[in-house]
Amino acid sequence: MQSREIQLIRRPVGTPVAEDFALVTRDVPPPAPGEVQVRNLYMAVDPAMRGRMSDAASYVPPFVLEAPMEGPAIGEVTASAHPDFKPGDLVFSRLGWREVFNAPAEALQHRDAAALPPSAYLGFAGSTGLTAYAGLFRIAQLREGDVVFISAASGAVGSIACQIARIKGCKVIAAAGGPRKKAFLEEVLGVDAAIDYKAEPNLTKALARAVKAIGVTGIDVNFENVGGDHLQAALALANKHARFAICGMISQYNVTDAPTVPKNLTALMTKSIRMEGYIVLDHMDLEAQFLTDMTAWHKAGLIRQAETIHEGIDHALDAFHGLFSGDNLGRTLVKLG
Amino acid sequence: MQSREIQLIRRPVGTPVAEDFALVTRDVPPPAPGEVQVRNLYMAVDPAMRGRMSDAASYVPPFVLEAPMEGPAIGEVTASAHPDFKPGDLVFSRLGWREVFNAPAEALQHRDAAALPPSAYLGFAGSTGLTAYAGLFRIAQLREGDVVFISAASGAVGSIACQIARIKGCKVIAAAGGPRKKAFLEEVLGVDAAIDYKAEPNLTKALARAVKAIGVTGIDVNFENVGGDHLQAALALANKHARFAICGMISQYNVTDAPTVPKNLTALMTKSIRMEGYIVLDHMDLEAQFLTDMTAWHKAGLIRQAETIHEGIDHALDAFHGLFSGDNLGRTLVKLG
Repeated sequence: MQSREIQLIRRPVGTPVAEDFALVTRDVPPPAPGEVQVRNLYMAVDPAMRGRMSDAASYVPPFVLEAPMEGPAIGEVTASAHPDFKPGDLVFSRLGWREVFNAPAEALQHRDAAALPPSAYLGFAGSTGLTAYAGLFRIAQLREGDVVFISAASGAVGSIACQIARIKGCKVIAAAGGPRKKAFLEEVLGVDAAIDYKAEPNLTKALARAVKAIGVTGIDVNFENVGGDHLQAALALANKHARFAICGMISQYNVTDAPTVPKNLTALMTKSIRMEGYIVLDHMDLEAQFLTDMTAWHKAGLIRQAETIHEGIDHALDAFHGLFSGDNLGRTLVKLG
Repeated sequence: MQSREIQLIRRPVGTPVAEDFALVTRDVPPPAPGEVQVRNLYMAVDPAMRGRMSDAASYVPPFVLEAPMEGPAIGEVTASAHPDFKPGDLVFSRLGWREVFNAPAEALQHRDAAALPPSAYLGFAGSTGLTAYAGLFRIAQLREGDVVFISAASGAVGSIACQIARIKGCKVIAAAGGPRKKAFLEEVLGVDAAIDYKAEPNLTKALARAVKAIGVTGIDVNFENVGGDHLQAALALANKHARFAICGMISQYNVTDAPTVPKNLTALMTKSIRMEGYIVLDHMDLEAQFLTDMTAWHKAGLIRQAETIHEGIDHALDAFHGLFSGDNLGRTLVKLG
């Protein structure tokens, strides 16, 4: 059995380029005792992978050069030498960026193929869903009636955060780039106000208009995915004691020069704002309650999967670049199987 | 009876100048029924007063033009038309920037003249003390053994924060400007490492050296009074899950251009840092426990008052400017009585 995989062969400086990667074909032998063979159905790409391409200290180790990269994947067992797994089982792993692989059973987790479609386990019922759920409930301590500002709201995590906040009776102001994304926020996700930041020369003014349009004085919660001018706008329009869940700062990942915003960090003091960064791995204790809630909300038609699917591992880097070029809606997946 | 007072007559742009203020003499009649007459012994100046000189929205209203400014003061009752107060009583009020005044009894709070010297109630046993106490214990959730980085550590709040952290068994790295302040931190406050930021071209490197010198890997708590490059250094050297109590950002108050630091806010995410601004007024419920602790620590010789005293209301603005020019040690007071 042969499998193709994407290797990182050079650490990118600034925006990753094609020469930093290689598509490699290798043989996959039958699984050794204790191992399971999996054919990936979908893999996901996410912005945090940019961090792992660099050598800098972070909460996860950098990718190893000349080895397949890693990331969330959902696959089907094709052969098993471990009693807990049998062919046809649906399994989650962090062994994306490859088509077929053998892994020890400990690297795999069962998923219920009857409850949800496979790709949901990489989306609203996966780590991106849990990221939105933990950020809103645990970090930002979301309360009914809060006004919530969500940046990158059409993205993988943002699109779920919008839906959770609406389910919890909050007013949602959502920002994304371009008319297609704005329409998605308004028409598919049903947010209270949507901002196309690319059409706004001054995002703070745009957020002030949105706040006024929905009849409130400011925002209580910021679910931050972008940083920079988005964070600046959130600080400017925050109510006293606002809570900011810092989930991501995608505007800063490829920045090699100094960022120039936010210029108004003193708002932390003048408005007694709490701002907290987090990673979902620190909140896995929420997973059982999260899956219960998500499955119930999905059955009730309250949560929908938003995804952009690229076909084939040879397009996996296109999918990754799409995260930064801004042409993706919802979770960006690569269909492998 | 006559009293001199300082009025704000024009809102400053950038650094306040003499022409923004007036020293006015007025007559003080005997107290009306329900009122108490007080001669202030000491008033305090603090950086937050700069905010109230401007018109911008903040947690306290701006100073009224052509009226005496306000601020913490400790005084002695000179005449009383209210049963709860008698001549000779020691009282705290927020009616500083004036020598003698009449006020309704509700504007005054008794203080124990036997327990502590009067100026202590504007220092370690006053709002600056409670600011340090609330910031460390409630906002930063200080734990024994934490490594704590304190900026403006020779100042009113910082000098108390250093002492509290030491009492609680923490390692303290303290920063202040100039050799006199550095010596004060080392010799009087007994911190584990002191940084003279004015002698350091790169504060992040200086903090990294201090961390290494005391044999630790980074900081667990930042007690932030300065902002800018101090906050940047704290973010750079923070351990995972560090807690930042944002008490002040004095480096930013007179800034009319855009701040250029911190450049590393993404550390919030990569290190799951919590950063929270606060004002002491939201934490007055801690006051009773705070006074109990402070009185006990003072009796045990663990807390000492650090103060810089200016004489006479005609030098009150010099005292205020001293906060920003950096020539003060500890709490800056004006002796009025």
